[in-house]
Amino acid sequence: MGAVKNKRMPRAVREQQMLDAAVHTFGQRGYRAASMDEIAELAGVSKPLVYLYLNSKEDLFTACIRREAKALTAAVRAGVRPGLPADRQLWDGLTAFFTHTAQNPDAWSVLHLQARTHGEPFAAEVTAMREEIVAFVTQLIVVAARAAHRNPSLPEREVAGLAEALVGAAESLAAWANTAPGVSAKQAAATLMNFAWAGLGDLMEGRPWAPSA
Amino acid sequence: MGAVKNKRMPRAVREQQMLDAAVHTFGQRGYRAASMDEIAELAGVSKPLVYLYLNSKEDLFTACIRREAKALTAAVRAGVRPGLPADRQLWDGLTAFFTHTAQNPDAWSVLHLQARTHGEPFAAEVTAMREEIVAFVTQLIVVAARAAHRNPSLPEREVAGLAEALVGAAESLAAWANTAPGVSAKQAAATLMNFAWAGLGDLMEGRPWAPSA
Repeated sequence: MGAVKNKRMPRAVREQQMLDAAVHTFGQRGYRAASMDEIAELAGVSKPLVYLYLNSKEDLFTACIRREAKALTAAVRAGVRPGLPADRQLWDGLTAFFTHTAQNPDAWSVLHLQARTHGEPFAAEVTAMREEIVAFVTQLIVVAARAAHRNPSLPEREVAGLAEALVGAAESLAAWANTAPGVSAKQAAATLMNFAWAGLGDLMEGRPWAPSA
Repeated sequence: MGAVKNKRMPRAVREQQMLDAAVHTFGQRGYRAASMDEIAELAGVSKPLVYLYLNSKEDLFTACIRREAKALTAAVRAGVRPGLPADRQLWDGLTAFFTHTAQNPDAWSVLHLQARTHGEPFAAEVTAMREEIVAFVTQLIVVAARAAHRNPSLPEREVAGLAEALVGAAESLAAWANTAPGVSAKQAAATLMNFAWAGLGDLMEGRPWAPSA
């Protein structure tokens, strides 16, 4: 019925509707349990049309991963304004990250959980996105170190390690925030920002980091 | 041939040899590519004996995950002595973690990469281990907060978030340290300890955390 109603919709628009339905279904039910019937029904199209446009369940899932990886990376980049101080850039980036993962829990489940769990080709798609984000965070830390020192004493390898640690912490916290009841994106961002900027030592002393107004 | 030579070896010992061979093979070649032939040959036993003892490739892989998860958790617990100051306990725990993952790169690849990538039953085994480690780290942070304040101001949810962040950072850093050339366990532990204890803010100011002698 939906297929008939939507007859004149351009292919690109319909594909996005299929991907919306697929991300929701994969995120809620998991890759294996999700059926092409459910996805087609939710998208309001016939199952043959989904196969015609996206070819197979594997290709549909890959298309979901690529679209959502691109959206997440774009959201983080858009949140950060290069001219601001380093701590502000980090805070803005983390806030953008946690806001996006909180507003798109199914997409985050697809990227963080489903894509990693169902075979190497899917996992490789996520690895590519992760490398891009690590490179972006590395750059942020390098800029912060340059701002703090005329001759930065943080060796390149140390910076690379810090970026890996920060991205790993953010991934872990996003998965937790989306399942723990009542944790907002802002709270998750503040927890990680306090941790990353002030460290546990300062937190223990009751001196948490706070964004400047 | 090995099977004949080892005829009088007790079953438990032989099983451990099979698991050693399997962890190495799964870690080096990946779950899908690893063959039961290779594993049997490396263990010096016949393939039917591997099936007799471990039943199937799936069961063998599950046994590997369980053994290595137990070994990693035990190594971290053994590294931490409860009487010491909080920062020392955290440093000892991180050092034990990175030492174990560096000395057992195949085991870490099985736990962090292979087990998560090849289906939900395997991933669930690792999730159970992860929850145990998060609970352990949560307890460490609670003790540290109590030591710093008579009435700790860190709410329970904040502590849970910090533990998730720290464990995520450690996982990410261990994977990186095992692939980046020339990063030692001590360096990885120091990077994360600096990050976790002093925070990026202090690092930028050139005030890294250092273990007391």
